[in-house]
Amino acid sequence: MTSDKNEPVLPRGSIIGIFGGGQLGRMLSLAAARLGYKTHIYCPDENCPASQFAWKHTIADYDDNAALTAFAKKVDVVTYEFENIPTDSVITTAALTPVFPPIEALYTAQDRLNEKTFISEKAGVPVAPFQPVENEFDAKRAFKVLGGKCVIKTRRMGYDGKGQVIASSETEALEGKKSLGKVSCIAEAFIPFNREVSVICARGTSGETKSYPLIENIHQHHILHKSVCPAPSDNGKARELALQILTALDYVGVLAVEFFELEDGSYLVNEIAPRVHNSGHWTQDAGCVDQFELHIRAITGWPLGNLQPRHAIEMTNLLGEDINQFEALGEDPDLRVHFYGKSEAKPGRKMGHINRILS
Amino acid sequence: MTSDKNEPVLPRGSIIGIFGGGQLGRMLSLAAARLGYKTHIYCPDENCPASQFAWKHTIADYDDNAALTAFAKKVDVVTYEFENIPTDSVITTAALTPVFPPIEALYTAQDRLNEKTFISEKAGVPVAPFQPVENEFDAKRAFKVLGGKCVIKTRRMGYDGKGQVIASSETEALEGKKSLGKVSCIAEAFIPFNREVSVICARGTSGETKSYPLIENIHQHHILHKSVCPAPSDNGKARELALQILTALDYVGVLAVEFFELEDGSYLVNEIAPRVHNSGHWTQDAGCVDQFELHIRAITGWPLGNLQPRHAIEMTNLLGEDINQFEALGEDPDLRVHFYGKSEAKPGRKMGHINRILS
Repeated sequence: MTSDKNEPVLPRGSIIGIFGGGQLGRMLSLAAARLGYKTHIYCPDENCPASQFAWKHTIADYDDNAALTAFAKKVDVVTYEFENIPTDSVITTAALTPVFPPIEALYTAQDRLNEKTFISEKAGVPVAPFQPVENEFDAKRAFKVLGGKCVIKTRRMGYDGKGQVIASSETEALEGKKSLGKVSCIAEAFIPFNREVSVICARGTSGETKSYPLIENIHQHHILHKSVCPAPSDNGKARELALQILTALDYVGVLAVEFFELEDGSYLVNEIAPRVHNSGHWTQDAGCVDQFELHIRAITGWPLGNLQPRHAIEMTNLLGEDINQFEALGEDPDLRVHFYGKSEAKPGRKMGHINRILS
Repeated sequence: MTSDKNEPVLPRGSIIGIFGGGQLGRMLSLAAARLGYKTHIYCPDENCPASQFAWKHTIADYDDNAALTAFAKKVDVVTYEFENIPTDSVITTAALTPVFPPIEALYTAQDRLNEKTFISEKAGVPVAPFQPVENEFDAKRAFKVLGGKCVIKTRRMGYDGKGQVIASSETEALEGKKSLGKVSCIAEAFIPFNREVSVICARGTSGETKSYPLIENIHQHHILHKSVCPAPSDNGKARELALQILTALDYVGVLAVEFFELEDGSYLVNEIAPRVHNSGHWTQDAGCVDQFELHIRAITGWPLGNLQPRHAIEMTNLLGEDINQFEALGEDPDLRVHFYGKSEAKPGRKMGHINRILS
């Protein structure tokens, strides 16, 4: 598939391969069903949430070349539900079948230094000032260059606040880097912000781009707690910036862009996710195309469709034991339930979410 | 599971067995996913729509006792997506695991004579006058007893207008019976009606009952073409009658009741379906609990939840080649697409449906 406007849609019955078997893969699979596609999950975990509702499941490690090759030959297009899949595995796959979003986006999003550099220099979208940090000495230097309080993060594999420390002094910067271990890091200036918002947008194989209205996000203990759409206020800038990144990446699929909104109403990108995103789960009950169907549409050549929600909605994550309140969850007239099929309700584990229709 | 109000909900991760692998089974499976259940489809067709999005698939005939027993032992509750499954198979299964809706409902719905007798005599709900017809002589007699024009139908296995003939004379009645072959039939008086409507209702394991608003149905060539909800007018009687049948059957699950609405605003039951129903597909995009989730809730002990649609919606079936208009289907902002994963778009075959949000 290319970006040719006359490219036909991927035929009904085609097989969409998905790297990753978590809840995002599961909800992508359920959306693919509605459009008449089959799904094939690639995930080392035998009992992963996605494989419970998919046509096929390859149980293999992400670096198993024989399994990757067999998988790529059996499917018509490949996508992924998380950005920490090894790029080598994607390269192996991409030699045999189209992969969306493009590998360049994955490469960019996997590494915070690549990400910040690309967003600021190539896409021309503001990010917080940053410095590469390879060792304790770098950490001290970065603290000075950034002019004070900063956040030191591992360049790779961090999520939900894991792999990051805040430093308010040169010594804290040095100790912070030490605590993160012998891995490449990045230091980012700590910028006070008003609120955290995100934009879920998409670009199709034809080059068509669209985004949902601005989403306001509330985190607890570094994990997303609630998302509300439309955000109570929106000056329109964040959506413009998100589309700028989408185009700069020559992207195909759904892209999530997380922003800090500053006092003066300007935005800094916090991070991007080259996939469907927790802050877009409200779309499932908004009366428009949801983010999962949107991603499937984008990578299969469908028109992106209507992203204008008919309701204001608030999404709340169900962590750990939250999921066991079935009476309360089942009787509330404004609430829709989405469970992920995970067996153990460990504390802090994302077990499901609820969408509450507000108006 | 019994009708005990304190009965706990079927635990998350439990396995719901579904007899039948068509689009109704598929959409039941997708709804079960949202509530955190797994599904196991029992269907002789290897490539059936439901098995594409289910945890397990038993490929076996409906009278394969060994397969039935193995299936029943592997699942936690059993339901069905069509009423023509042999009752013996259900009895075999029910000896090992709970089956909902109850087998009495299946027995009633499978045979038009049982059905009409039960509805009129046990539930006290009006049906068109009817007569059993075993042979050509019966057919002539029935025509006379019913006082004129009548419809002769096979007692079992008819659907979408198959297995029925209209008779306007004694000779036509005789010839009609002959054309249907050596099978037990029923003759029903032909009653002029204003419109066809249906009620989708449910009863949970706790005895809780609920129904959606009245649905108006338009058929073409005996196949459902469109359903609109709420129906443009509703005197409330049909929903009351449907709940009367639900209770008389000591039912658990979703029940569909099709009515003829007469000139004077009274109703006659045309037929019942002990399952989710084509005229309830609009519920998927109405902003309330949809009929598939409703059925899963009813049989697993969940509260039934909110059945009040937030929108007026029109459902249109996509028959045969209708499904290939992807551009038109994909771009319309008020339209949601649901495809069934069937490969061959044969003329008249139900390939998918669209829900159009009207207001």
